Amino acid sequence: MGESGKRGELRLVEEIRRRAGRSAAGFAGGGLRLGIGDDCALLEVRAGEEMAVTTDLSIAGRHFRLDWHPAEAVGHRALARGLSDLAAMGARPVGAFLSLGLPEELTRARGKGAAWVTRFFDGLLALAETAKVPLAGGDLAESPIAVADIVLVGAVRRGRALLRRGAGAGDGLYVTGALGGAAAGLACLAGLGGRRAGQVPKRLEAVLRPHLYPQPRIAQGLWLAGHGLGTAAMDLSDGLSTDLAHLCEESGVAAEVEARALPIAAGATLDQALNGGEDYELLFTAAEGAKVPRRIGGVKVTRIGRMVKAGRGRAQVTLVAEKGREALAAGGWEHFA
Amino acid sequence: MGESGKRGELRLVEEIRRRAGRSAAGFAGGGLRLGIGDDCALLEVRAGEEMAVTTDLSIAGRHFRLDWHPAEAVGHRALARGLSDLAAMGARPVGAFLSLGLPEELTRARGKGAAWVTRFFDGLLALAETAKVPLAGGDLAESPIAVADIVLVGAVRRGRALLRRGAGAGDGLYVTGALGGAAAGLACLAGLGGRRAGQVPKRLEAVLRPHLYPQPRIAQGLWLAGHGLGTAAMDLSDGLSTDLAHLCEESGVAAEVEARALPIAAGATLDQALNGGEDYELLFTAAEGAKVPRRIGGVKVTRIGRMVKAGRGRAQVTLVAEKGREALAAGGWEHFA
Repeated sequence: MGESGKRGELRLVEEIRRRAGRSAAGFAGGGLRLGIGDDCALLEVRAGEEMAVTTDLSIAGRHFRLDWHPAEAVGHRALARGLSDLAAMGARPVGAFLSLGLPEELTRARGKGAAWVTRFFDGLLALAETAKVPLAGGDLAESPIAVADIVLVGAVRRGRALLRRGAGAGDGLYVTGALGGAAAGLACLAGLGGRRAGQVPKRLEAVLRPHLYPQPRIAQGLWLAGHGLGTAAMDLSDGLSTDLAHLCEESGVAAEVEARALPIAAGATLDQALNGGEDYELLFTAAEGAKVPRRIGGVKVTRIGRMVKAGRGRAQVTLVAEKGREALAAGGWEHFA
Repeated sequence: MGESGKRGELRLVEEIRRRAGRSAAGFAGGGLRLGIGDDCALLEVRAGEEMAVTTDLSIAGRHFRLDWHPAEAVGHRALARGLSDLAAMGARPVGAFLSLGLPEELTRARGKGAAWVTRFFDGLLALAETAKVPLAGGDLAESPIAVADIVLVGAVRRGRALLRRGAGAGDGLYVTGALGGAAAGLACLAGLGGRRAGQVPKRLEAVLRPHLYPQPRIAQGLWLAGHGLGTAAMDLSDGLSTDLAHLCEESGVAAEVEARALPIAAGATLDQALNGGEDYELLFTAAEGAKVPRRIGGVKVTRIGRMVKAGRGRAQVTLVAEKGREALAAGGWEHFA
C-alpha cells in the first residue's frame, strides 16, 4: 500500500513492526514470546489460566467516519472495543492483533502532515501502552474502504471469568463510571459535521472525549474477577437497555433499574444514559449483601437496581421512575450509518 | 443485516451460533470452554503449551471476487489461510474466530437458493469440521463490501514451534505436495470470467480445486514439530520465490533451488510453481542427514534444494537449472485486484 502495491505494503509492515516492537519492549514480561514477523505470534498464559479471545470489526461509514473522527481516535476506539470485552470477562490483556484494510490514499503523507495510518497507529499504540498490551500481529491489505478488525487475547484464572450468565434474582445491579457520555459526545460531533475535517475544537474536547477516547475498565474487571464479586458482567457497548436485556436473557432473570440512581454523564440526557452506546463501562451483578466498594481503581461504582425473577407478564427490564414503572425496550444503539 | 438492520443481524448471529455450536459439539474436548454468545470466548491450552495466533483479512475484489468464486470456496479459503499459518508453526488448531462485514444483499436468500452468507458458512464450517476446529466467536457488521477476517488460535508445545528463523547453511530444503496448482486454477477461473457467476463447471473441478479448496497441511506441520525435524518452516502463501526469500532473510542464509526437483502440479507451469501463490503447502528445512520421510500423513514430501551461506555477490535465492544458475527474484503473487 502507499507507493506502489507490494513494495509500499512491505514498507508499511516494517514501520508497524518497528513501532509495535518498541511499544512492546516495555512490557515484554506479559506473555508475548514471538511478535510480528512469523506465520503466527506465540503467547503464553500462566499455569491455571485460560484464554479469553474477542474480535471487533470497525468499518468506515458504519463505526467511524473519516470526515468526523480524528485518525488517532479511530485507532484508540478500535483497540478500546476489544480491551473492553476483556475487561467484561475480568481478563488481563496478553496480546492484541490488528487486521487492517486501507485505501491507498490513507497510507500516504498529506503535505507536511503524517499519513492517516500513522496517526491511526499513534492513537492505537498510545492506548496499548496504557493497557500494557503488545501489538503482537495482524494483517494488512489494500481495500476500497477502511476496515479494522481488532483481536484481543487475554488470560483469566480458570473458572473465574465473569460471564453474562450467572445473575440471580435478588442480586444487586451495578455500573462503573457514568452513562450517556459517549452518545452526548457523538451528538456533538454530528453537530459539527465534517467542518473541521477530523480536528477537534479545543473547547469541545471534554464533551467529545467519552466518545472519541473511551476508557476500557480493565482494572475494574480484574478487581471483580479477582475478588469473586461479580455474579455476572458485560460491557456496555450497545447501550444499557440493549445490553441489560442480553444479560437478563443469558441469566434467565429480569431486572429493575432505578431511574434516579443512574449515574448520568455531565451533558448527557436520561435517554442517552439508557439507550446510548459505546460508553464501555462495566455492567455487573453482585449477590445481595456483597460488599461492593464505591470506587474501584479510582472509578465510581453505582448501584442502579436489582435482578428479579423472570415471569410471564413481566418485562425483561423495568425502569422504576418517580412517575411510575415502565417496561424498558431494548432501544439501544443503532450505529449512525 | 438481512431484513432491517439490527433485527436481521441478531437473527443471523443466532443462525451462526446454532450452526457453529452443532459443528463444535463433535470436538468439544479440544479446548473450547465457552463459545459464541459472551463478551469473549474462553479457550484452554494444556500445561507446557503456548498459544499460536494468526489473523488473515480477505477482501472482495482483492482476495476473492463475488463473480468468480463460489461462496463456499470463499468461506473455505478464508479459513484455510488461517489454518495454514498454524500448520506452518506446527500448532494444533484450538479455535477459529470470524469477523464478517457484508452488504445486506449477501444475507438475503436468492429466489429458491440459499443466501450467499449461508453458502459461505457451508464452505467454512465443512473445513472447520475436517480440521476439528470449532468456530468459537467473531463479529458481524453490515459493510459496503464483503470483508472476512479469520483468526486462528492454536497450541504448540513450548519451544517446539516451527519458526522462519533457524535454517542453517547445509540444511536440506523441502516442500509438501505440489506447487503451482493454485495459480493454474486461478488462471483457468480468470479465463472463465464471470460467465458462470460463481458456479464451477464439472469438467474443470479438478483444475480449479487447488485454487478454490486448498488443503492446509495441519497434520504435516504437527508431525514436523512433534519429531523436532524442521529447523525452519513457513507456509507458501505468496509463492515460493517470495516466501523462500523471507525464510532466508529471517534465518540469515541463502538458498539454492533445483529446478528439476520441483514437484510441479499437474497442469501448472514452472513459472506458476516458482511464483504462483496460495498453494498453502509447507516449505521447511531440515539438517543435512536428517531422515525426512517421502510422505507425511499421505502427502508427498520433496527435497527441492539446500540452504547455503549468505554472502556478498550471492543471490538470496538461486535457481539451478540445466542451462545454468540464475538469481531467482521474489516474483511472487500479486493479488489479482
